Amino acid sequence: MTSSDPCTVGRVTLPVEEGMDDDLAAIIESLGADAVRNSDGTWLPTIVSDLGTKVYSTRFCARGDEAWALDHLDEHVSLYLCSDRVPALEDGPLEIHIMRGFFAEQVRPDTDVDIKRWWQVRDRTTGEVIDDWTVTGEGADCVVTVPAMAGHVYTVAFLAAQLWDTTQMYNYTTNHWENDPTRSKEHPFDVVYPATWNHVQESLSEWLDAHPEVDVVRFTTFFYHFTLYFNEQAKEKFVDWFGYSASVSVPLMEAFEAETGWKIDPEDFVDAGYHNSSFRPPSKFFLAWIDFVNRFVTDRVRRLVEICHDKGREAMMFLGDNWIGTEPYGELFATTGLDAVVGSVGSAATCRMISDIPGVRYTEGRFLPYFFPDVFNDEGDPVGEANTSWVQARRAIVRKPLDRIGYGGYLSLANQYPEFMARIAQICQEFRDIWERSGGKTPRTAPFRVGILNCWGARRTWMTHMVAHALYYKQAAPYLGVVEALAGLPFDIDWLDFDDIRDGVPEGIGVLINTGAAGTSFSGAQEWADVAVQAAVRTFVARGGGFIGVGDPTFWPGGGASFRLSDVLGVDREIGWSLSTDRYPNVIDSHFITDGLSLEVGPVAPEIVPVCDDTQVLEIEDGSIRAAVHTLGKGRAVYLAGLPYTVDNSRLLHRAIWWAAGRDDMFADQYVADDPRVETACYDEAGLVLVTNVSFDEVTTTISGLADEVTLAPAGSVWIDISA
Amino acid sequence: MTSSDPCTVGRVTLPVEEGMDDDLAAIIESLGADAVRNSDGTWLPTIVSDLGTKVYSTRFCARGDEAWALDHLDEHVSLYLCSDRVPALEDGPLEIHIMRGFFAEQVRPDTDVDIKRWWQVRDRTTGEVIDDWTVTGEGADCVVTVPAMAGHVYTVAFLAAQLWDTTQMYNYTTNHWENDPTRSKEHPFDVVYPATWNHVQESLSEWLDAHPEVDVVRFTTFFYHFTLYFNEQAKEKFVDWFGYSASVSVPLMEAFEAETGWKIDPEDFVDAGYHNSSFRPPSKFFLAWIDFVNRFVTDRVRRLVEICHDKGREAMMFLGDNWIGTEPYGELFATTGLDAVVGSVGSAATCRMISDIPGVRYTEGRFLPYFFPDVFNDEGDPVGEANTSWVQARRAIVRKPLDRIGYGGYLSLANQYPEFMARIAQICQEFRDIWERSGGKTPRTAPFRVGILNCWGARRTWMTHMVAHALYYKQAAPYLGVVEALAGLPFDIDWLDFDDIRDGVPEGIGVLINTGAAGTSFSGAQEWADVAVQAAVRTFVARGGGFIGVGDPTFWPGGGASFRLSDVLGVDREIGWSLSTDRYPNVIDSHFITDGLSLEVGPVAPEIVPVCDDTQVLEIEDGSIRAAVHTLGKGRAVYLAGLPYTVDNSRLLHRAIWWAAGRDDMFADQYVADDPRVETACYDEAGLVLVTNVSFDEVTTTISGLADEVTLAPAGSVWIDISA
Repeated sequence: MTSSDPCTVGRVTLPVEEGMDDDLAAIIESLGADAVRNSDGTWLPTIVSDLGTKVYSTRFCARGDEAWALDHLDEHVSLYLCSDRVPALEDGPLEIHIMRGFFAEQVRPDTDVDIKRWWQVRDRTTGEVIDDWTVTGEGADCVVTVPAMAGHVYTVAFLAAQLWDTTQMYNYTTNHWENDPTRSKEHPFDVVYPATWNHVQESLSEWLDAHPEVDVVRFTTFFYHFTLYFNEQAKEKFVDWFGYSASVSVPLMEAFEAETGWKIDPEDFVDAGYHNSSFRPPSKFFLAWIDFVNRFVTDRVRRLVEICHDKGREAMMFLGDNWIGTEPYGELFATTGLDAVVGSVGSAATCRMISDIPGVRYTEGRFLPYFFPDVFNDEGDPVGEANTSWVQARRAIVRKPLDRIGYGGYLSLANQYPEFMARIAQICQEFRDIWERSGGKTPRTAPFRVGILNCWGARRTWMTHMVAHALYYKQAAPYLGVVEALAGLPFDIDWLDFDDIRDGVPEGIGVLINTGAAGTSFSGAQEWADVAVQAAVRTFVARGGGFIGVGDPTFWPGGGASFRLSDVLGVDREIGWSLSTDRYPNVIDSHFITDGLSLEVGPVAPEIVPVCDDTQVLEIEDGSIRAAVHTLGKGRAVYLAGLPYTVDNSRLLHRAIWWAAGRDDMFADQYVADDPRVETACYDEAGLVLVTNVSFDEVTTTISGLADEVTLAPAGSVWIDISA
Repeated sequence: MTSSDPCTVGRVTLPVEEGMDDDLAAIIESLGADAVRNSDGTWLPTIVSDLGTKVYSTRFCARGDEAWALDHLDEHVSLYLCSDRVPALEDGPLEIHIMRGFFAEQVRPDTDVDIKRWWQVRDRTTGEVIDDWTVTGEGADCVVTVPAMAGHVYTVAFLAAQLWDTTQMYNYTTNHWENDPTRSKEHPFDVVYPATWNHVQESLSEWLDAHPEVDVVRFTTFFYHFTLYFNEQAKEKFVDWFGYSASVSVPLMEAFEAETGWKIDPEDFVDAGYHNSSFRPPSKFFLAWIDFVNRFVTDRVRRLVEICHDKGREAMMFLGDNWIGTEPYGELFATTGLDAVVGSVGSAATCRMISDIPGVRYTEGRFLPYFFPDVFNDEGDPVGEANTSWVQARRAIVRKPLDRIGYGGYLSLANQYPEFMARIAQICQEFRDIWERSGGKTPRTAPFRVGILNCWGARRTWMTHMVAHALYYKQAAPYLGVVEALAGLPFDIDWLDFDDIRDGVPEGIGVLINTGAAGTSFSGAQEWADVAVQAAVRTFVARGGGFIGVGDPTFWPGGGASFRLSDVLGVDREIGWSLSTDRYPNVIDSHFITDGLSLEVGPVAPEIVPVCDDTQVLEIEDGSIRAAVHTLGKGRAVYLAGLPYTVDNSRLLHRAIWWAAGRDDMFADQYVADDPRVETACYDEAGLVLVTNVSFDEVTTTISGLADEVTLAPAGSVWIDISA
């Protein structure tokens, strides 16, 4: 095969279902699919073995066997919850209706556990634990009565039994399965209980025997769902895609205590109501709990993978739903033996989150839109969503390719939209072409590495600032934009936690980035009070390193500064304590990093003032600095007040990194398009440059190092031979 | 005299100067002035005794006697300064040029003191004091060499001698006195030194004898200037109208130590570079130092007042410049024996700051504009400034009248603007009319008191959120607006600190207001971690009190909330830790407090989310609450994200206070104009309502309780008889 005769088959997975037998072959050919799968709520057709493709089948390990679940209701999955904050108006008994605000069909207070050990009443005003409380009623009527003091606020932390799997609840509600008598609400069960664990292994084994047509077991997923619970109106109340509050059970806690000697306090889980959100600087306990659950889950995953392998099947994990405890970027992940990971691609960052996972043979991205009626309807725009998803994902794929792509949901629904089917056929082919032309190699990166510094480091590679996967959150957008930009920029990235740099920034790092809101795990919070951390980064810069801060970098007020490295950044956040100091920002007309670009900062940005005479201000708005640069010793620092993802912001970050590294003189050698809507990837070995239009405009642009202008169709791409 | 025959003379002070003898009588008659004064840099004309008015004369106590100053340079006034923050790039000696960033004509490092006792080098990274440092050079070339560690940041706290009085420097520069050979730069001297103190007393005595024409000694002011220093370009570098960094000297510190047993640390003064700004929650030391300086200054002021009284003169204090240590709202102020206070009126709040001072016989407001060339020139708008100043001040005067008003600066300059002179003649008459009609009584207030709670309490009555007097600061505007609105609203106000409420909110308070930015003395910072404070306010509300929070009320994250009284307010500030929690704000269509009003919040407002099911959201913008109400027990709470002063915001606060007090049913009985540009004051005893237009539009409005519509000229006022 030559480049003029492109491969038109492979690397694509198609969702199929019963009742479409006559159409399947043509659709498979059109997309070049070499694998088919079912989705939650659909079944593989009987002709699946005749399609000439690999066959994936969905497999659940913690739900989907309602007979077992109902027979073993005491082996339910649990959830640590925290009641409303209830103020006592007067001295005396205070009744706390602990289920207020929770959905009684999803959870019930678990009074079968030793409640005096595992439940906890706290006076949130004093921080004290209250002992002398009683419980009356059960389920939605459960009331805890507390001896209260007037003017104090009380909460009850309690273990709840999960009655309904959260993802299945979402699918059930979205698809109106309440109208389908064949569907039931699924109770989740917990493999921490030996009977359930044995059952999960045996039923997998039996199911494999009964389904010889299945080549790949697509685990959706394993045992513990991320934290997700609902309010009394069945509306989402709390969601944390990284949350470990639903992987809690008395046996697991007791095992943890036995192993570590740590005496668990319910507060360790409910965390004053914040539930160890990934925005919270992680406690020592929480990191230890993640580590413990990770080992527990890994052992059990490994056993299920062995069962698959023993029967000649592949094992693939869906990165989502019940993925908690697998820690794909942890050291143990490769030991599971999993063949592949598949995940939902919602952006460049989520794509890299999948494609960068080490220790598996291949990765697959499930592209948007999901073939569900929430998009495929008269008001929806499936082609638009497919285009947006592709343009975002392509930025990441160019840097670190997924091995495969695919779709999910009801094919019968999507197939009613021929324009959509035609467009995804093109996308599948463009994806294959990237593989074909690049030979699977990654393109050229800068001659220095870029480090992202936060409390999570490598264990949350590409995962920072996300709340529910890739949902938009106003307060996270200015920081998530940094991650999104980087996911498609030609840099090698190291995700560093503070332990990684405490004794010095690692060799090879040219630029260190610290981005996040004040007091969060992402900017680093109290880590910046550590002298070793400050000294390490300051000397890194003084000796020639680059430092880029976005939002509230190094924020932790103390010693006369809000940004502990204000002397490096040349700017500080005004928190009201230095309003008496006059500020004379030195605004310069132009600078390498903002050349021709329009910085967008909002919607949330801190008040920033200059604190060094030699700070150069690039952008300022209503007295607050939006972009500035500063040098310290041999190094350079860049401050940006926020960086939501836009093409201009992405290019600005691209330039800022080269400038901070002190290599701006080499920037023109990188085949950079003048127009920031156009990105390039240089495959030196193949002698090719891939030029991509990340906008939906037709764009004509010059590219440094290339003689001719290039014109690209909306969202289009071209390959240019530079071997001559 | 009847009300149809208004008094046209009195209550007005006019600045006069030499060289205008022919014009003075007419101007005095036109304004109805009954007193004349000189200003800094002008002298009373010889005919002053023939003008038929009282005569004020400016008197300085810490400058203006350059012969004495130059003979006693070692009795200079000092200033505690903190050098730049200097990072050490490598291990080894670090040279800190401590005068970098300071104006060498204003200050010089004072190496005559025991520098190892009174100077201090700190490692700001570790917080440690460094001992082994040396000083070389002097004046602008003074260098401190520090044994440094790479990556650490160092500062030098040092005592500096003041070479040039800061207010005189401002006047000198503004009026280009460098071109006037009769002027010199004035060195300030310090009455802490016995020789200087004797000289100040004796020279006052001699001066009084030499100037029998002077009736009132207008002290401008006493001994210590507020903190104000300049950078190398002679531009203002730091200004704190409440700052005590320029009332420091070795003798005073030693006396403080001897009396209190406290060992002063230079850090107590430089405060990590924040210089105990009034936005900083005050340290115990700082409050003790204020108290000590207050006692020292009061004793010496009392002596100077005695000298005046002994010679049959009145003593008046100018509230500004060298006012530090007088503490007009302190318990000692009345013991000075001062007859009067005069101050500059820049707003309603600054007017109340003067007119509410207890313990003096009369107060006088010096109105804007000051007759200086910065306003009286071809580009300036003196009439506009006079109107703005009057409309703002009138709001305050109606609530608590000044006894007198006046102007300052060069009359010869203002007299070149006849339109301006005519306008201020009208203003003087309108001021006299208010006195005449009201009989000097204050108008009706609400049947409950309003408490403003912050770290400063009564000692900073009407003084909160100001940086340099009434200058605009973006970050303070949303809070200063509350103070400005209250200064003209019909409420009795108590200024409370946290000690005042720790054991319970005082009797009589109907509504408590907490307003300020996070972490500042105005919102209260760590005071809200105090259980007693939380419980006191929470039970106050639960039992029927009103609580109004503006900006970051009760902010001090802990126990699961950012606002410690989030359960009272029904809202909390999102600081990134609870982004995983879904929010469903309950936005209501209309409410008593926002009825017909447009809330303006900006320019700085926090991210606010609902935390109680029964929180009613009145205004929300991009997901962030701008106004909300909530009830707790028998009480009511109001949250406002910010409240810069506007007529709508002022009315909104007016309504919010009545609503929070649970007395909204009585609001219509208060003669409230429908149009918020119109305010009223009800003099029940006189049977009159004063109706004022606080805008520059002509306004026609109805007024509750009055049958007829009222039409007011721009900035106009009318009196309405309600006695019938």
